[in-house]
Amino acid sequence: MLSIHAASVQEVPLLLEMIVEFATFEKLREEVTITEAMLARDGFGVQPQFRGLIAEWNHAAAGYAMCFPAYSSFQGPVLHLEDVYVRAQFRDKGIGKALIGEVAAIALREGCDALRWDVLAWNQPAIDVYKRLGAIFLEDRKAVRINGEALRKLAEPSRT
Amino acid sequence: MLSIHAASVQEVPLLLEMIVEFATFEKLREEVTITEAMLARDGFGVQPQFRGLIAEWNHAAAGYAMCFPAYSSFQGPVLHLEDVYVRAQFRDKGIGKALIGEVAAIALREGCDALRWDVLAWNQPAIDVYKRLGAIFLEDRKAVRINGEALRKLAEPSRT
Repeated sequence: MLSIHAASVQEVPLLLEMIVEFATFEKLREEVTITEAMLARDGFGVQPQFRGLIAEWNHAAAGYAMCFPAYSSFQGPVLHLEDVYVRAQFRDKGIGKALIGEVAAIALREGCDALRWDVLAWNQPAIDVYKRLGAIFLEDRKAVRINGEALRKLAEPSRT
Repeated sequence: MLSIHAASVQEVPLLLEMIVEFATFEKLREEVTITEAMLARDGFGVQPQFRGLIAEWNHAAAGYAMCFPAYSSFQGPVLHLEDVYVRAQFRDKGIGKALIGEVAAIALREGCDALRWDVLAWNQPAIDVYKRLGAIFLEDRKAVRINGEALRKLAEPSRT
């Protein structure tokens, strides 16, 4: 039996455990620097920066989703789905779709007419699911990131 | 002479004008449904959902940037750069880099160690600039979006 609820601050250790599992699945384990303290501070304060959802299957933690408000300069408020993850032993039960469905309901409640997210190009099972849901793939976009020293250098007033 | 300032609500018409120019440049003009009223409501209320920056060259509006806080489940707070645009007649003056530099400074002030954004794969001049800034291209990601009727269907409780 599936149930989905908003993550509580008491579930931060579980959330981090599943984030690390997800990063390992994505072959990005070495990128995880977030801590329980950061998740507690950023997700469960007066102005949370994200919302976490936990899926349970027969009362066992089966997966999670994380989302936050984003903004499209072309369309206005959108919801960004940062992660959706289902643990290996709980796959093929519709849990991922149910998590995205809850996030979609949050989007509509918040006045967003779109949900957006990224998928790894090699994750064909996820791509197939998203296609069946009617998702549009923005094939001509590349994701870009700048951080650490390059970010600090860019922010220097003498950069121009 | 270049100057950059935070957009004010009085500059919403100018902001929309440049958003439409940018969308036209990106060959996505038909995607723009945002209005002045939405930009004023979402960017200039008590809890703004984005921040707009306007670049001026000799007091003429030369470009803009739009950013908002995002969250990485792997690294914590990051800043998302939604748009950076320089009008055709003002290019090759370092204005785009200066706008991104201001956004980078906002990121650091807000405790974000990373800035992230998307670029259109065919926009090689922009890609070249970002590479010189030390940006990392996440080549294995695809951007996905679901909206309108598909989003509403996904949000229905009877979906599973």
